[in-house]
Amino acid sequence: MNGAESLIRSLLASGVETCFTNPGTSEMHFVSALDRVQEMRCVLALFEGVATGAADGYGRMKGKPASTLLHLGPGLGNGLANLHNARRAMTPIVNIVGEHATYHQRYDPPLASDIEGIARSCSRWVKSSASAQEVGVDAAEAVAAAMAPPGGSSTLILPADVAWTEAQGPAAARSVPARPKVDEARVREVAEALRRGEAALVLNGPMLREDALELCGRVAVATGAELLCPTQVARIERGAGRVSVDRIPYVIDLALKRLQHLRRLVLVNSQQPIAFFAYPDKPSLVSAPGCEILTLAEIGEDGVDAMQRLADMLGARKTEPKREPRGALLLPTGAMTLPGIAGTIAACLPEHAIVSDESVTSGRGLVPATKNAAPHDWLINPGGAIGMAMPVAIGAAIACPGRKLLCLSGDGSAMYTLQSLWTMARENLDVVTLVFGNRTYEILKGELRNVGAGEAGKKARDMLEIGRPDLDWVALARGQGVDAARVDTLDALARELGAALRRNGPYLIEVKL
Amino acid sequence: MNGAESLIRSLLASGVETCFTNPGTSEMHFVSALDRVQEMRCVLALFEGVATGAADGYGRMKGKPASTLLHLGPGLGNGLANLHNARRAMTPIVNIVGEHATYHQRYDPPLASDIEGIARSCSRWVKSSASAQEVGVDAAEAVAAAMAPPGGSSTLILPADVAWTEAQGPAAARSVPARPKVDEARVREVAEALRRGEAALVLNGPMLREDALELCGRVAVATGAELLCPTQVARIERGAGRVSVDRIPYVIDLALKRLQHLRRLVLVNSQQPIAFFAYPDKPSLVSAPGCEILTLAEIGEDGVDAMQRLADMLGARKTEPKREPRGALLLPTGAMTLPGIAGTIAACLPEHAIVSDESVTSGRGLVPATKNAAPHDWLINPGGAIGMAMPVAIGAAIACPGRKLLCLSGDGSAMYTLQSLWTMARENLDVVTLVFGNRTYEILKGELRNVGAGEAGKKARDMLEIGRPDLDWVALARGQGVDAARVDTLDALARELGAALRRNGPYLIEVKL
Repeated sequence: MNGAESLIRSLLASGVETCFTNPGTSEMHFVSALDRVQEMRCVLALFEGVATGAADGYGRMKGKPASTLLHLGPGLGNGLANLHNARRAMTPIVNIVGEHATYHQRYDPPLASDIEGIARSCSRWVKSSASAQEVGVDAAEAVAAAMAPPGGSSTLILPADVAWTEAQGPAAARSVPARPKVDEARVREVAEALRRGEAALVLNGPMLREDALELCGRVAVATGAELLCPTQVARIERGAGRVSVDRIPYVIDLALKRLQHLRRLVLVNSQQPIAFFAYPDKPSLVSAPGCEILTLAEIGEDGVDAMQRLADMLGARKTEPKREPRGALLLPTGAMTLPGIAGTIAACLPEHAIVSDESVTSGRGLVPATKNAAPHDWLINPGGAIGMAMPVAIGAAIACPGRKLLCLSGDGSAMYTLQSLWTMARENLDVVTLVFGNRTYEILKGELRNVGAGEAGKKARDMLEIGRPDLDWVALARGQGVDAARVDTLDALARELGAALRRNGPYLIEVKL
Repeated sequence: MNGAESLIRSLLASGVETCFTNPGTSEMHFVSALDRVQEMRCVLALFEGVATGAADGYGRMKGKPASTLLHLGPGLGNGLANLHNARRAMTPIVNIVGEHATYHQRYDPPLASDIEGIARSCSRWVKSSASAQEVGVDAAEAVAAAMAPPGGSSTLILPADVAWTEAQGPAAARSVPARPKVDEARVREVAEALRRGEAALVLNGPMLREDALELCGRVAVATGAELLCPTQVARIERGAGRVSVDRIPYVIDLALKRLQHLRRLVLVNSQQPIAFFAYPDKPSLVSAPGCEILTLAEIGEDGVDAMQRLADMLGARKTEPKREPRGALLLPTGAMTLPGIAGTIAACLPEHAIVSDESVTSGRGLVPATKNAAPHDWLINPGGAIGMAMPVAIGAAIACPGRKLLCLSGDGSAMYTLQSLWTMARENLDVVTLVFGNRTYEILKGELRNVGAGEAGKKARDMLEIGRPDLDWVALARGQGVDAARVDTLDALARELGAALRRNGPYLIEVKL
């Protein structure tokens, strides 16, 4: 067995069984070894940002890493934006980046670049494998490092000769450290703070899953604390029958208003609430002035355990949390409006659907509208690098066969990784993509005002509007093998969305705004 | 005037008058200032790799930098692959990368990342502007650094508050150092070596322009030396009436064969010839064993001056070089074949066209077939990061209005930056794009064998073949506002190509293989 095969078998031994690839010459031995290792599922992307975003979506749903296979520095560069989002999502991923043969690097061939330097910006663990003998152990270490709480990317650089040289067998899995427990004093301090009232728990990471939210809901009922999460999170389990958490608004004035009455915020696996961007004469911190910030659990600590102990200390172990009732969700009709779209999606959402949401301005009403919809997972963009929604939907669909994927994207966002549609078609994934065609980077028009730059004149507007020419999403989808339709009324949206969710395989609906 | 306006006016004062953009919130003051500075031409891209590749094409043709405008680390990441190519092309570019306000960075907001770390992999000069007072001078320095021989990327990071704070006026242009002259001993040493025969000049950079090639051609005739260039170069002026230079083949066995009889290679603004990748049991250096390697001019030195002095020393100042005759180029007809495509392109190429070539395996016969075509510029991919051809064509078209652009791309390559088509449509650029639809990463099938991994089995083949589903390039082009046709005979290709080159504005032809 050569280094490439040892690497793949070591990844499998550590539980990594899916690889999102866009290979080149330096990765040919990895590709060839796939023929000998049937257990590794490989999914081809036509652009690396699709592969890395898919690995993010997979890891968010599966709680364990997929690997990516990327072609040297430029391939990693193409994948960097979605690896940035994955870093913020704290998603475990193992990136395998091909590299020139060790002895060839000194000649500085055309494709050579500082792969380690590029990788460091998005990875917690970076290593260039020195030999075929070591690559198996390196792979096991890479997986363990990616899984170590709170989770993140490992990048293993694979020189071509390490891949093609004879190697030993695969390496066994390494143990992954558990999340550290928080000490009793911290739990007690928080319990006392909550008893003083005017408080909110700010939740992120594993605290946004159904069982953890149940616990938080008990504490909330027992103490009157509100449940909040940052605007940008990786995944929330929500909908009817579950405990809701309120997202802090993106728009800074709304965020300041939302938090202004709160005297204490308790962070549980979360950063303190901050503005997404700075704005002139607005604060960076969106909590009220003088608001006390307490930490129940740091980001990598065991927040669920701490919340359980907090509930016990507060006598809330059996307190009934407030769960969202199932809404009587009627299909709105008539002209296309944003609230109407939100209502339609809420009414159509299948049980246990997964929503990959980068609808940006078009989707601002979606989260409140869907809280009484069928239970579902909501995946958001925690890093702000747009082009996330379709790749993440691919990875989530592969992680969770049998569940329906609803992918929501602005038209501007969707253009960054539109190659995703081809992979959806090739893998026949159950992903229904809604592209909101407002033909503008609408969010930037608001931001231009918010940063104090006033209204856009003609030249500035040209940088914000993406009509002229209009994008035809039906053509862009069909050109990649995904059937599609365009709708311009709520009735048509409901009809197309309902039909698309009933069929198998991908479908795209361009929602004309 | 605020920092953003000072920056734009300083770029203009240094001769930078075009900006390829994909902005976000942190760049809104730059965008707003465009309304007040009409002289800066701004071209919007829907993906950053289009913007950086366009800046590469612009700089290759214009010999001075365009700027890019990118949104924080992820925006730079999306642009990295084409900045890698630009680094290898030694193209002057000034990247402006927006960043969080200086005082906001400490909160590690979602979009924060190590921009400097990412930028260093592709830039010779990186700086984060510290204040609105300094940003003008920083811009002037960035331009001078980009222009300093042999040319490269500067990356200026622009924090939002630096952009919006009141600034002084623009900074004046900085002087750019000239290329150093080589000393007489080196010229003499090369002259003596050439007299010994069995030699070739290996040319790159400015040596591949018409006038420099005339000089080299005199030396070649006087000494019997051959004229070679590396496989990957940025730009060659070639065609009828010009002195030809022979590209060293990409395929390693062909490269070894091409160079096996040469006893001495004289490098002029070029690296020594190396294999693009390493292959088991093949050398990294493709020159013959024992071949003497001499350097007339290092990459940043004044090769043209050195060649002039060499010609004088050899008494070749008035020697007539061997120029390519105008070919009698007949249009091939019949079934689609690669030699037939090459012949059709050669026959159709308009005077002073610019060819942006990333045709990969489909275009291997193009370069020899076109050497007797109308004089033209040939732009190749010097860095090997695919997704170059369409963005480079955009930049070259904007740099050279009035010249026809022919963009040649494999279908696999074209998918990396297919968003280019939208910018071609919006700017109504005279770019005719040929996409060679062989529905496979054909080059990798050969590479799989070349690296000793044998023939692809089913799973490996799945990573190399991009049919299933087939891409429909006519739909992908029309979906972005570019009219298009599909051809499957040479007659249809000639008809469509001829018509496309006669009309104004962009057009795409899918060449079905």
